[in-house]
Amino acid sequence: MQQKYLSIRQASLDLCKGLEPEDFVLQPIEDVSPTKWHLAHTTWFFENFILKKHLLNYSEFHPQFAYLFNSYYESEGHRTLRHQRGDLSRPTVSEVFAYRAYVDEHINTLLLNATEEVKTLLELGLQHEQQHQELLLTDLKYSLALNPMDVAVLDINEQEGQAKAAEFLHLPEGIFEIGFKDKGFCFDNELGVHKVFLQEFEISDSLITNREWIVFIEDQGYSNPLLWHSEGWAWVKNNNIQAPLYWEKTRNNDWSVYTLNGRKPLNQESPATHISWYEASAFAEWRGMRLPTEFEWEIASAKYSWGKRWEWTVSAYQAYPGYEKAAGALGEYNGKFMVNQMVLRGASIATPDNHSRKTYRNFFHPHLRWQFTGLRLCKKTNSSVSKK
Amino acid sequence: MQQKYLSIRQASLDLCKGLEPEDFVLQPIEDVSPTKWHLAHTTWFFENFILKKHLLNYSEFHPQFAYLFNSYYESEGHRTLRHQRGDLSRPTVSEVFAYRAYVDEHINTLLLNATEEVKTLLELGLQHEQQHQELLLTDLKYSLALNPMDVAVLDINEQEGQAKAAEFLHLPEGIFEIGFKDKGFCFDNELGVHKVFLQEFEISDSLITNREWIVFIEDQGYSNPLLWHSEGWAWVKNNNIQAPLYWEKTRNNDWSVYTLNGRKPLNQESPATHISWYEASAFAEWRGMRLPTEFEWEIASAKYSWGKRWEWTVSAYQAYPGYEKAAGALGEYNGKFMVNQMVLRGASIATPDNHSRKTYRNFFHPHLRWQFTGLRLCKKTNSSVSKK
Amino acid sequence: MQQKYLSIRQASLDLCKGLEPEDFVLQPIEDVSPTKWHLAHTTWFFENFILKKHLLNYSEFHPQFAYLFNSYYESEGHRTLRHQRGDLSRPTVSEVFAYRAYVDEHINTLLLNATEEVKTLLELGLQHEQQHQELLLTDLKYSLALNPMDVAVLDINEQEGQAKAAEFLHLPEGIFEIGFKDKGFCFDNELGVHKVFLQEFEISDSLITNREWIVFIEDQGYSNPLLWHSEGWAWVKNNNIQAPLYWEKTRNNDWSVYTLNGRKPLNQESPATHISWYEASAFAEWRGMRLPTEFEWEIASAKYSWGKRWEWTVSAYQAYPGYEKAAGALGEYNGKFMVNQMVLRGASIATPDNHSRKTYRNFFHPHLRWQFTGLRLCKKTNSSVSKK
Amino acid sequence: MQQKYLSIRQASLDLCKGLEPEDFVLQPIEDVSPTKWHLAHTTWFFENFILKKHLLNYSEFHPQFAYLFNSYYESEGHRTLRHQRGDLSRPTVSEVFAYRAYVDEHINTLLLNATEEVKTLLELGLQHEQQHQELLLTDLKYSLALNPMDVAVLDINEQEGQAKAAEFLHLPEGIFEIGFKDKGFCFDNELGVHKVFLQEFEISDSLITNREWIVFIEDQGYSNPLLWHSEGWAWVKNNNIQAPLYWEKTRNNDWSVYTLNGRKPLNQESPATHISWYEASAFAEWRGMRLPTEFEWEIASAKYSWGKRWEWTVSAYQAYPGYEKAAGALGEYNGKFMVNQMVLRGASIATPDNHSRKTYRNFFHPHLRWQFTGLRLCKKTNSSVSKK
Repeated sequence: MQQKYLSIRQASLDLCKGLEPEDFVLQPIEDVSPTKWHLAHTTWFFENFILKKHLLNYSEFHPQFAYLFNSYYESEGHRTLRHQRGDLSRPTVSEVFAYRAYVDEHINTLLLNATEEVKTLLELGLQHEQQHQELLLTDLKYSLALNPMDVAVLDINEQEGQAKAAEFLHLPEGIFEIGFKDKGFCFDNELGVHKVFLQEFEISDSLITNREWIVFIEDQGYSNPLLWHSEGWAWVKNNNIQAPLYWEKTRNNDWSVYTLNGRKPLNQESPATHISWYEASAFAEWRGMRLPTEFEWEIASAKYSWGKRWEWTVSAYQAYPGYEKAAGALGEYNGKFMVNQMVLRGASIATPDNHSRKTYRNFFHPHLRWQFTGLRLCKKTNSSVSKK
Repeated sequence: MQQKYLSIRQASLDLCKGLEPEDFVLQPIEDVSPTKWHLAHTTWFFENFILKKHLLNYSEFHPQFAYLFNSYYESEGHRTLRHQRGDLSRPTVSEVFAYRAYVDEHINTLLLNATEEVKTLLELGLQHEQQHQELLLTDLKYSLALNPMDVAVLDINEQEGQAKAAEFLHLPEGIFEIGFKDKGFCFDNELGVHKVFLQEFEISDSLITNREWIVFIEDQGYSNPLLWHSEGWAWVKNNNIQAPLYWEKTRNNDWSVYTLNGRKPLNQESPATHISWYEASAFAEWRGMRLPTEFEWEIASAKYSWGKRWEWTVSAYQAYPGYEKAAGALGEYNGKFMVNQMVLRGASIATPDNHSRKTYRNFFHPHLRWQFTGLRLCKKTNSSVSKK
Repeated sequence: MQQKYLSIRQASLDLCKGLEPEDFVLQPIEDVSPTKWHLAHTTWFFENFILKKHLLNYSEFHPQFAYLFNSYYESEGHRTLRHQRGDLSRPTVSEVFAYRAYVDEHINTLLLNATEEVKTLLELGLQHEQQHQELLLTDLKYSLALNPMDVAVLDINEQEGQAKAAEFLHLPEGIFEIGFKDKGFCFDNELGVHKVFLQEFEISDSLITNREWIVFIEDQGYSNPLLWHSEGWAWVKNNNIQAPLYWEKTRNNDWSVYTLNGRKPLNQESPATHISWYEASAFAEWRGMRLPTEFEWEIASAKYSWGKRWEWTVSAYQAYPGYEKAAGALGEYNGKFMVNQMVLRGASIATPDNHSRKTYRNFFHPHLRWQFTGLRLCKKTNSSVSKK
Repeated sequence: MQQKYLSIRQASLDLCKGLEPEDFVLQPIEDVSPTKWHLAHTTWFFENFILKKHLLNYSEFHPQFAYLFNSYYESEGHRTLRHQRGDLSRPTVSEVFAYRAYVDEHINTLLLNATEEVKTLLELGLQHEQQHQELLLTDLKYSLALNPMDVAVLDINEQEGQAKAAEFLHLPEGIFEIGFKDKGFCFDNELGVHKVFLQEFEISDSLITNREWIVFIEDQGYSNPLLWHSEGWAWVKNNNIQAPLYWEKTRNNDWSVYTLNGRKPLNQESPATHISWYEASAFAEWRGMRLPTEFEWEIASAKYSWGKRWEWTVSAYQAYPGYEKAAGALGEYNGKFMVNQMVLRGASIATPDNHSRKTYRNFFHPHLRWQFTGLRLCKKTNSSVSKK
């Protein structure tokens, strides 16, 4: 456990090796948080839910940090308003690193005699840290992308190709079991193993590529209201959307994309990414297909490879039958977001290793696209829908 | 058909008998439309989709009305922005009545020789008119409620009681068929009859009453963030929500409510209404219960009476398997709203007679409450959800 | 006095002869008020400041009207929020007319025995009514102009020509007296007769015409940021301003304008109108000239005719030396607006007869243009400004 | 000149000695700019207006800096939107320092052979740099004040006392000359020496102190609408204003204030500061006095000491007679702000030495208070204002 703890904690710092102190402060929009904040908030999680409650005589690193680095736990008292995280230059990056070291040292002490309860909380804290590792990268990408200087901060290839030609898999109708039933960790929203009935369906074994997305663009996909949900169309018009996030036309009329490794030519064979649910739906409509439900995805996932893009599903994020929030503050973790968000399944190139499983339920609002999102299509049923 | 046509068209006018010309113009917020607009827009529907396409030599009543009274059909050309409907004093109420008479007369002519296609469109037009009859009333109520003069415009009792004590019905698990399969009219979003698997569940045979809602208020339901979804809590705080819409404390510390028949004392035995989905969810959480899914509701509906309140479900509004939009403009009717809205089942005291059925899927955004909404609870499963 | 009272009160009603009841309700933006509101508010002024305080046993027409029709007098208690005036269909137009008749009748009674104080208040009430007559017309014009049906409601020629060629008048430097010193009525902001020193100046004897404004447009006046104040340029960009308010290009590429008498071809010889202070300033800059100060205007006004357009001056609206607010609520009349507004001098075609004088100080925010505004230029001094 | 150049340029850096790299990036609201931006923008001014035009073979330090660090010069091409300055972590602080050194070195070269035109531009550049030194401090103060950690970054006493008791000076009426006529530098808006006639007036020789401001607060000054301009009252209500900016009640019910040297107890003898024009006006009204005009201030300034606070005047910021904008981009410096802003006279503790004179015209919008503003009162004239 100690090894795992140190390794995951170190991984957060490793992501920041290419950063200057100024880079850690940025918060251009409310949805993204400063790098510094991620590093401190994950640390506060360990301090607040573990050390303060379970380590005798533990003394807080700084009396104001609980206020500064609580994220959204109403039960844990007042906190900095989310949109003001980027207004804080102090504590500095160095002080945040010192905070991390201080907490790590005390966790280390605690681990010498950890109860099962502590181990469970620690596991949750590490899973939480891993979630923030992904957010740290996507938030950072969003922030740096606004800078016309095209800064490169991470040695990463975001655009790996997807070799094979897409094929559709056929799955028969039936009753299936959904939800997490293995050993090991899962989040509360994956629990409540339950049966669902699925009609037969056909699902692609591959993600839509940039090459296919360009065809959508060139076929005026962003100009045809009939392809879009009503709110999606308003979003397109109000924000003048004409391509996935980070795409930019070069002087040669090719596409380039901003990546954490600087601006790059678009790789047409790579899975399309940084698309909203609205865009994914419009694309599917244009193709005469549809998005899978999260249940279809979970059942079929054994049959294709996944993990490079978070895949939008048509399913709204809702509780499984029998879902129960955890008691206390940790009960705020998942349940209170179960409205107006859409489920994504899979994982992405920014997801830490060992932090993905087929039952994992990610969720975002349908207009958001700063995550490494993507889409996989289902054929529409040879429709028996007809009146009488 | 002619009889039915005239009768439904007349019903719209009957709703307005208590109105002064000034009342027909109001649009205090974008979500509600002026009475005048409803009367004209439903008429435009017949003119645009039926008369102009199917009645030889038909001449439009007024060349600008298509622009003024198109609602949201992107395929049918430019239209008045929704939030500007209340800025138009002309055409006057009299002119709108004349427009209705003119169109009715020509529909009458057309009916002498109506094809099946025309009859189908006419049926849709009448269903559409009935939907707007309900909206006309709820929009009007919202508009007049802002007037401190407590105007009464309709002889209606909005607060009928609900006699019996609530009991919970138990339904066993199983595979059920969902969707419309009778004869007669239904909307496209009810089609796609399909099987679902339901776990066993227990659902109340009664709606939550005002009496119960007062307990929720007095138990600080509106002040406890842990009962609310995150977005719901933000909505409560930003709008200073402290009770259902239209409730007002009297000088004696009792509650009164604005109704279309003027301000009335709150009837504690009447089903609570004008609540948002957020409020319904928070109430359920406070009770340790949950909202039904739309499928549970549909399956159980045979066992209790319903129809006084639109009942919020936990289901997000999505397409049924095999759902296909109609071709052309009418395809915009339902599908493009299938995101960020929650399904309501049942009907309300403002729903026209013969315009309800158990498969009917109404839908609104979770923060809205100007409809006659209500809620029915399910018990949480004796949860088998637990981690090993 | 009685004769004058009745005549001015009747004049308000005369302006509404071409209106339908629906027209009286419109309030498309906060800055403009419904016709009905003007008619009731001016009546409330007489009821509140005169009848309730000076007529024995006077009984209010309606207990809620003080709340509904107070405009901005903080000292007189709560009032309807300004932007919600258009949300009120009741009292109806008929009821407002009855309110006017009731108050008129009681003023009539009071006039049989009016003290000097009452007569002074009555004079103020009538001046106030006349101010609202002009606002009633300009607000109504703004509201109806949004209606694509080009409604005509008043037999008025807004575009009378301006026959003669413009000439510049030369006035020598000197000390001049500013402010009202005649007999008769004036507003408090005209008082405080005081001396100012004016440099010599040259001022046009004519207003800028539509013909001249078209040249400004065609010379890209609306596209050259260097002609505009910084805030003016932001206003142009944010609102996509390309011509004075109410101008519209016809199919023949001519200009038409909406007027209270319906849409008309633009008369190029008529003084330009419905321009903001920003536009007036940019036009002056483009011509290499400047706007007059309000003092220059007042001193020179004897030498040219004026009264068709409110003329923007370069002067910000501020108190004259020795300015004192009246005691009580009436002290709120003028003083509290003395910031961020620009002075206009003269009068317009919508100003009632006998309601203009050369010392009259009108004032509006620099971005507003729904009044009948216009501009008259001064030459820039043969500048002795230079750095050594 | 070289000496002066280096000394003023160094002074900018000296202000930043207490800062961490993270501090240079903050921009919590559009009105304030990041420290880093000030340092780079003033440098761009020298590079763009001097080096690129007057130093042969000069090569830009970085091709994107002109875009990044242009402030508002429309004539100089596209620029970063003002509210996005805080979104840029790059160039880093080190790179900005290198940019400064590079430009300084080249200015040094240019100074070996500087023409008069270059010297004039250089003088303007240095005055511009000094203006930004003051803004750098006030922007930084605003940004750091949002941090609950009460950071101290500068060894400064913002609250020096004001020893003597206030007395009123009497000045007789007469014609006076206004504007800059000395040797040396002034801004274009001080030019146009011209005569004004002033009525006799009485002006205080001292600024209002914190002690006096507390009396205003305790007398409910912030709760009495009759003291406020209409827009000022809306500002108070919308922003819940209850004291000058940066004031905070301590647990002992005393007042503390945030300063650049950390949080300090309020010194009651120090001149009140960080007040808006609205507050200054309301205070004057409460005292039965008024603000001086900028002309009264300029004429009387010889008779009292000034320079600790920018003093609000009642004068709106407008052009002097004969004012002419400079040709080209530099003409945008002052003229385009001459609307909706109020003149402040004097200087403040944040104003660099040798950067103040009695003719200097500072200007801000009436709601702003992040500058070191203050107020000095005039008695109201023993008013001869009366009707007839």
